[in-house]
Amino acid sequence: MTNEARLDRMRRAMQKDDLDALVLMLPENVLLLSGFWPMIGATVFVFPVEGTPHCIIPECYEREASSSLWTTQTSYYRYGLLGAPAPASATRGILSGLAQGKSWTRIGFEGSFEVVAPSWNTAELLVPAAQTRELLRTAFDGCTLVDASALLQSQRLTKTPYEIAKLRTASEVSSIGLESFDRLVKVGVSGVELAAAVERDVMAVGTGRDGACRVRAFAQVAVGPEETAVGYRPNEVSTTRRLKSGDVALLELGVVVDGFWADRTRVRAAGQPTDEQLKIFNVVQAAQEAAVQEIGPGVRTAQVDKAARSVIREAGYAEWFPHVTGHGLGFRYHESSPTLSPDSSETLEEGMLTSVEPGIYRMPHGGFRIEDDVLVTRDGAEVLAPFPKNLV
Amino acid sequence: MTNEARLDRMRRAMQKDDLDALVLMLPENVLLLSGFWPMIGATVFVFPVEGTPHCIIPECYEREASSSLWTTQTSYYRYGLLGAPAPASATRGILSGLAQGKSWTRIGFEGSFEVVAPSWNTAELLVPAAQTRELLRTAFDGCTLVDASALLQSQRLTKTPYEIAKLRTASEVSSIGLESFDRLVKVGVSGVELAAAVERDVMAVGTGRDGACRVRAFAQVAVGPEETAVGYRPNEVSTTRRLKSGDVALLELGVVVDGFWADRTRVRAAGQPTDEQLKIFNVVQAAQEAAVQEIGPGVRTAQVDKAARSVIREAGYAEWFPHVTGHGLGFRYHESSPTLSPDSSETLEEGMLTSVEPGIYRMPHGGFRIEDDVLVTRDGAEVLAPFPKNLV
Repeated sequence: MTNEARLDRMRRAMQKDDLDALVLMLPENVLLLSGFWPMIGATVFVFPVEGTPHCIIPECYEREASSSLWTTQTSYYRYGLLGAPAPASATRGILSGLAQGKSWTRIGFEGSFEVVAPSWNTAELLVPAAQTRELLRTAFDGCTLVDASALLQSQRLTKTPYEIAKLRTASEVSSIGLESFDRLVKVGVSGVELAAAVERDVMAVGTGRDGACRVRAFAQVAVGPEETAVGYRPNEVSTTRRLKSGDVALLELGVVVDGFWADRTRVRAAGQPTDEQLKIFNVVQAAQEAAVQEIGPGVRTAQVDKAARSVIREAGYAEWFPHVTGHGLGFRYHESSPTLSPDSSETLEEGMLTSVEPGIYRMPHGGFRIEDDVLVTRDGAEVLAPFPKNLV
Repeated sequence: MTNEARLDRMRRAMQKDDLDALVLMLPENVLLLSGFWPMIGATVFVFPVEGTPHCIIPECYEREASSSLWTTQTSYYRYGLLGAPAPASATRGILSGLAQGKSWTRIGFEGSFEVVAPSWNTAELLVPAAQTRELLRTAFDGCTLVDASALLQSQRLTKTPYEIAKLRTASEVSSIGLESFDRLVKVGVSGVELAAAVERDVMAVGTGRDGACRVRAFAQVAVGPEETAVGYRPNEVSTTRRLKSGDVALLELGVVVDGFWADRTRVRAAGQPTDEQLKIFNVVQAAQEAAVQEIGPGVRTAQVDKAARSVIREAGYAEWFPHVTGHGLGFRYHESSPTLSPDSSETLEEGMLTSVEPGIYRMPHGGFRIEDDVLVTRDGAEVLAPFPKNLV
């Protein structure tokens, strides 16, 4: 499956902004327009508004690059070996050579990406800073460097059929983790054991699924009332606390498959939940499903938030739902938009992908959230990789 | 254990560079001077050359911050919740307030960090870009902003006793992964299964060890001759290929414990290795031990490289050892220095930490590397968390 739709759309957007070329280094944007998800960064991709793109790649990754790159010219440079040049010196000449003989005047670059996705190597990242700005300035001497971050973010909002297929795979792989979680939650297990097992299963079982080559999961499992009652935080620490009977465990799961992301949440009780826990869970589930029902092209984001929030409000839990109902995702765990919140004013379009994740967090019962990734389709919504939602 | 030595050294270095304060946002640098390893970024730490530091923190992380911060003033801001301000708007007023009434003229910031460590949330990073430069410019109006990246990197080179204790814990936790690898390598297991199991065991068993709160492993396992023979690459992809009898498996393992890093490598054979494989392994082991023997304060980095490289050269494998012998680490998987290579010209000092990791990669035998982290001590070297090196 090719992704010409993506390239055509980007070229039209570049024409509108009078950009002659984009120079991309962040793995999430290189992936967007080249098909290749860089191993560690250090790949530079030049996407001209006219003509063939050019990808400059560490030569040790030729195998991974050549098997995934779309139509593009390539240059390779020595990297990570004895006597290898600094990437900036290796790429400067190639970049200025690309500009030569062309009448490029405006070059777009990634000036304002402050939230970034990791590359395959999540242990260390390469990000553009002063050296990269100097590299671009010298390589494209005489051109105006234009911050194209907003353009890139907005173009990423609606996904193409190629990308939707990749995102569906990511969601399906994430279901492996939900399944492990369901199976493993029981009295005596700790949050960190659950998180570690979920991550292992996603990687070990998910790699190879539907052609997935590079799979990684990021699981956070809060257990018991104190931990789960603050489970609305953007990050949880999975601890050695063990589940007691009547505790809930809350799994927040990010999964990346070849650069495409899924974001899921499930909550499970160890032993027998109380009536109040069951009631809260049912309210959360009803709220989540009400929001999904509301999603469709032309619908306002605040309206989707309202669908979830009013279910929770009517059940009397409004003050314990302190966060947004959902956020965009795709090339990152969280994209810049859409945002499903009371004060957001976006309109959903076919091809957008959003998480739907209402929650209620209240002592002494604990925190409850259910999250799936939902695609806006031509006439409604599709939950990617549906998976059962059961408290027990 | 306090880390006053670190703060004193940094203040002296700042005086030399005429810096009135540092403003830090990268988790690795916030950790260095505050004791707190941020959960996702979004923490801003101001370290003045005189007076009490000030840490601005998302309020939802108050628990984690307050349990680890050294003496500092704190401000908290709403983050990640409905109606929360953008971090830049939340922090701008606090930052400019800190500068008020002081005669600050030169403020250091992280302008040139292009290689960065992840925060606890490795699935997504916050890094400074155009918005942060604008924030600093407006918050410290009238001051000169000075790129303090080189100062920070150089100050990170030699570790204090407090940091050495943390790094020793990280290495000890990484040995959990080496142990799992030893136990699990056998005919029929795939690289991705090994990598996933090693990561799980490090997280599940390592969390809580010696007070470790946040533990994550990053394992890459190449299996068989084709994969391991390119095992010198900075990143490997663990695949579904299964070990056959006579194959080797090469584990590259990064481990982070509360922001402090370990970097280990082991190689194991499935079934019976050939005589040539055993010979290569023994040469690599001898080379690694020769380099460790050479390490001590006042020793040139090139000399350590030479100790390893000459063992390999004399055995006739020089051309199959294409990378450096080692690199600095500590607050990141790879620090900017020292580098143990033929053309490096640094001198080792007490408190430096370096990997020692010679390797030989040759078809059809496969790739062999052994890596440990070695501390330069007052009168020699200490291998952190020694662990057996056995091919079988």
